[in-house]
Amino acid sequence: MVRSDTPDLIVVGSGLVGLVSAWRAAQRGLNVTVISRESGNAASSVAAGMLTPASEATFGEEPLMRLGALSRDRYPAFITELEEESGLSAGFRTAGTLQIAFDTDDLARLSDLGELQTRLGVKTERLTSRECRRLEPMLAPSVRGGILAPDDHSVNPRLLADALWAAAERRGVGGIRDRVRGLLTDGDRVHGVLLESGGEITADQVLLAAGAWTPHISGIPEGVLPPLRPVKGQLLRLRTPADEPPIVSRTVRGLVKGSPVYLVPRESDEVILGATQEEMGHDLRLTAGALWEILRDAHELVPGVSELEVAETCVGLRPGSPDNEPLLGPTRLPGLQVAVGHFRHGVLLTPATGDAMAEALTSGQLPDFARRFAATREFDSDRNE
Amino acid sequence: MVRSDTPDLIVVGSGLVGLVSAWRAAQRGLNVTVISRESGNAASSVAAGMLTPASEATFGEEPLMRLGALSRDRYPAFITELEEESGLSAGFRTAGTLQIAFDTDDLARLSDLGELQTRLGVKTERLTSRECRRLEPMLAPSVRGGILAPDDHSVNPRLLADALWAAAERRGVGGIRDRVRGLLTDGDRVHGVLLESGGEITADQVLLAAGAWTPHISGIPEGVLPPLRPVKGQLLRLRTPADEPPIVSRTVRGLVKGSPVYLVPRESDEVILGATQEEMGHDLRLTAGALWEILRDAHELVPGVSELEVAETCVGLRPGSPDNEPLLGPTRLPGLQVAVGHFRHGVLLTPATGDAMAEALTSGQLPDFARRFAATREFDSDRNE
Repeated sequence: MVRSDTPDLIVVGSGLVGLVSAWRAAQRGLNVTVISRESGNAASSVAAGMLTPASEATFGEEPLMRLGALSRDRYPAFITELEEESGLSAGFRTAGTLQIAFDTDDLARLSDLGELQTRLGVKTERLTSRECRRLEPMLAPSVRGGILAPDDHSVNPRLLADALWAAAERRGVGGIRDRVRGLLTDGDRVHGVLLESGGEITADQVLLAAGAWTPHISGIPEGVLPPLRPVKGQLLRLRTPADEPPIVSRTVRGLVKGSPVYLVPRESDEVILGATQEEMGHDLRLTAGALWEILRDAHELVPGVSELEVAETCVGLRPGSPDNEPLLGPTRLPGLQVAVGHFRHGVLLTPATGDAMAEALTSGQLPDFARRFAATREFDSDRNE
Repeated sequence: MVRSDTPDLIVVGSGLVGLVSAWRAAQRGLNVTVISRESGNAASSVAAGMLTPASEATFGEEPLMRLGALSRDRYPAFITELEEESGLSAGFRTAGTLQIAFDTDDLARLSDLGELQTRLGVKTERLTSRECRRLEPMLAPSVRGGILAPDDHSVNPRLLADALWAAAERRGVGGIRDRVRGLLTDGDRVHGVLLESGGEITADQVLLAAGAWTPHISGIPEGVLPPLRPVKGQLLRLRTPADEPPIVSRTVRGLVKGSPVYLVPRESDEVILGATQEEMGHDLRLTAGALWEILRDAHELVPGVSELEVAETCVGLRPGSPDNEPLLGPTRLPGLQVAVGHFRHGVLLTPATGDAMAEALTSGQLPDFARRFAATREFDSDRNE
């Protein structure tokens, strides 16, 4: 659907961040067009969909974890509103997350994580090995213990994206399937984009939300966007045989001899197994080593995964900013806003990003909760370059 | 290409066994039509292509190993003739096979195998761990020793199939892309086949060479064919990064804590990693456990495999007869011959099968070397049923 009228806002990128921004902006009355590449490239189409603010982040990233906790708290109402507007399910599962320690060292690390979670206000409950296995009977008998986070849920990112598209379309958002080659600038102001197919689209504002592909867009002046690095993730989508019960009934995150692995069940017969975290540049190759490590650790934790069918292998690129925190809102270039750098947290941060960007795109200001993540903040790397 | 004239011979199945039989029969003057299902179903399209007569077979299968050794000896001349007639390469590599023992128990087993190979006339050379690593520098330093079989080569089964098709077409063999639903019989004689699409084709003789799918063809009277069981094999096709040397330069077969694994390099940048052997019925699902075991054992033997790209995952069904030996030549039903039950040895046995079937299809008699494998031999299971 190509819109004939000039939009108020062009959104570049149709991952979760681009779509939620488009939908929220349209709810505020903006006339929005989303430009999307071929589907399947968004990191969110590969993501597992865990909503676990304190187990993804590493220590020292407390402000980011607080944003994650805020976004997680907004998830239930967000899903309700989205499913109502779109008429589609987003595959939101509210069974919580069970974190498992495989050996004694893993248990010590998990205890530290538990303390951090408590400090951040994440509700948790310590469990013995036996209690873990009562919740998840397929766990290896040798696991040492765990922590249940009953409010850390999961969502199906592909269904979530479909629902966001549908809700956005109901709000009049238009879509163009093309690649954006570069920004159109007029003096010091962005006033549209140039498409790979040759066309131009003009708008009052442009929002870049193309994840790890954002730096490939030409015409972004030096100093407007800090360097973004792609962080490769490989994972597997498994399928339970037709006549067998699900292998896990909630998200199970394990530490196996220091190595993290997770199993995220879907409402369908699927389980997501992941994931690697590799800094390899723009490399989308599936590797033997990644499959082996994921399968090895998953097998240690839940031996029965061996019986499952491999339905799909996936590779995605997470966009990492210099400080691993997202870059939101207006840039130094008038007419250009960004919502990028969500790294491993894009799914979790979708509701908060939508709220922040709706405000930024209509008022030019980020709301208080998001101000720390302003795209205009200073980075050490800016000074070095 | 559908032939209008009535063929002398219909070959059902376009795996290596069907194609080599068609080509060899056409060389003897028969007018041949091959009926093939959609491509990629043949076990040979999934096979690694090792020509190692004594390392695939288990002890007690000496007659089969002798047939394998005969077929291996015929390979060089067979390839020369085939490549000349077809104008295509079959990816025949003559670098030999290195068998590796990972630990002390594996070394003891490998010594037993070495004695068996010597008894069968397979040329072998015992190597220390250091000698193994001089031949294959990427081997794990901890491997305990090995045996080099300098005359056990490899072929690329997909290229071999392409070359056989081309050579057969040059000899006037026609092809029909369809499934065979059943045999057409006239009194006590087979005189053609009924196609899934509804058509019928008549011929003087029908050769069934449809591997594990053969028993699905209707109209085969009881007692004509013993039960065939599908033996599932899963393997991986890996790719070496563009600027890196091959990970192995010859076939490497390993025993890793009793578990067999192999790496077969191709002339291209590919390496085949395999393989499982599972008796699961007609099950073509790729499983997490199979990938994990293959990758685990390959990683123990050659740690560098982790760096390779996964280009393809493959599942095939090998056709196993009650005694694991092939079933060749005329059946008790006039007009019907078979070439099935090649189990794990189809690629290796391709030249010998072609020679045996050319003789059987033109004279009605198997040559001496193949007589033991007559389809009309008695099985214990016949008596039990």
